[in-house]
Amino acid sequence: MKKKGLLIVISGPSGAGKGTICKEWLKRHPEAVLSVSATTRPPRPMEIEGVNYFFKSREEFKKMIENNDFLEYAKVYDNYYGTPRKYVQQKLLEGRDVILEIDIQGALKVKDRFDEGVFIFIVPPTMEELRRRIVKRGTENPDIILQRFKSAFEEINFIKRYNYVVVNDTIEESVCKMEAIILAEKCRVDRNTHLIMQLQGEI
Amino acid sequence: MKKKGLLIVISGPSGAGKGTICKEWLKRHPEAVLSVSATTRPPRPMEIEGVNYFFKSREEFKKMIENNDFLEYAKVYDNYYGTPRKYVQQKLLEGRDVILEIDIQGALKVKDRFDEGVFIFIVPPTMEELRRRIVKRGTENPDIILQRFKSAFEEINFIKRYNYVVVNDTIEESVCKMEAIILAEKCRVDRNTHLIMQLQGEI
Repeated sequence: MKKKGLLIVISGPSGAGKGTICKEWLKRHPEAVLSVSATTRPPRPMEIEGVNYFFKSREEFKKMIENNDFLEYAKVYDNYYGTPRKYVQQKLLEGRDVILEIDIQGALKVKDRFDEGVFIFIVPPTMEELRRRIVKRGTENPDIILQRFKSAFEEINFIKRYNYVVVNDTIEESVCKMEAIILAEKCRVDRNTHLIMQLQGEI
Repeated sequence: MKKKGLLIVISGPSGAGKGTICKEWLKRHPEAVLSVSATTRPPRPMEIEGVNYFFKSREEFKKMIENNDFLEYAKVYDNYYGTPRKYVQQKLLEGRDVILEIDIQGALKVKDRFDEGVFIFIVPPTMEELRRRIVKRGTENPDIILQRFKSAFEEINFIKRYNYVVVNDTIEESVCKMEAIILAEKCRVDRNTHLIMQLQGEI
């Protein structure tokens, strides 16, 4: 029996660096896959079906919601976005790890439906550093900066619902921690019940 | 505030290779320490107090038992052996990780008293391989070999009470897994409550 992959959910406040960490981790683990979202927004030039998104009509999307086909979904302005359960489960069954980089609200919904995932929260070394990173990101509108910073601050409260917290001092260290977490999770006793049976079945 | 170290408890059936793994891990992590046991057996030549053992008289040992000074203790033939709580706690407070290599009965006693430890069970890749290793270990007495093998088989049942299981295919891989487990444990949210307060207290 092929060992199932792990669903690894990465989130954290905007500016914490989760995107860069995931990209670097994936580069080192080409056997893993990034979860592909479904959306009702029209494809942009160069976007490929099944790679960037699964593009769905509004009717298709609503049907998927009714069929409980999403690990989570949300409406953003006028479009829907969601994580199709089937895609994730198929990859996991193939023994591949699936990375889901997602905002905190989304991650918590996934947790309710897929508790066996590994939930990692990325935080900046200090809130002051986060403020610097948000400012550096570009928008010059101080209201938006303040708003982002405020929600980052509130979001810290949700760490408690995650399994791990990684303080993103340097990308290199954070990627190593992510690798360690995934390797360790694969050694957890509750993920290896087959092993006990296998060892004992041999006699 | 200095971050506390971790108590890492390593056990598994005799012949699984836990001693070699611990030795190699310690070589790579000189900042960590091996737990030193107390015993009533007399010191052998070259054994140093506080390094190999804490040598105690029978009266001293019994007093320590009464004072709840042991994480676990056992009587083996005519001598007592035990893990002094104070030594372990002192090293942990200094921020050093403490490795305790111990048999399964002892590990389970430690778990009852120190649940925040990290409990790792080392198993051979197959029971057939374990049999080979036990035979190779030397004693030619088939009764002892059979007895060891039988208890190894029964001990597999206790894996469920551990946090992690490491299949000892190669020492190198097992040491890497042990390193990953320890690094991951240090990222666990429930070991980082101070971090949340720290991030939020900054504002």
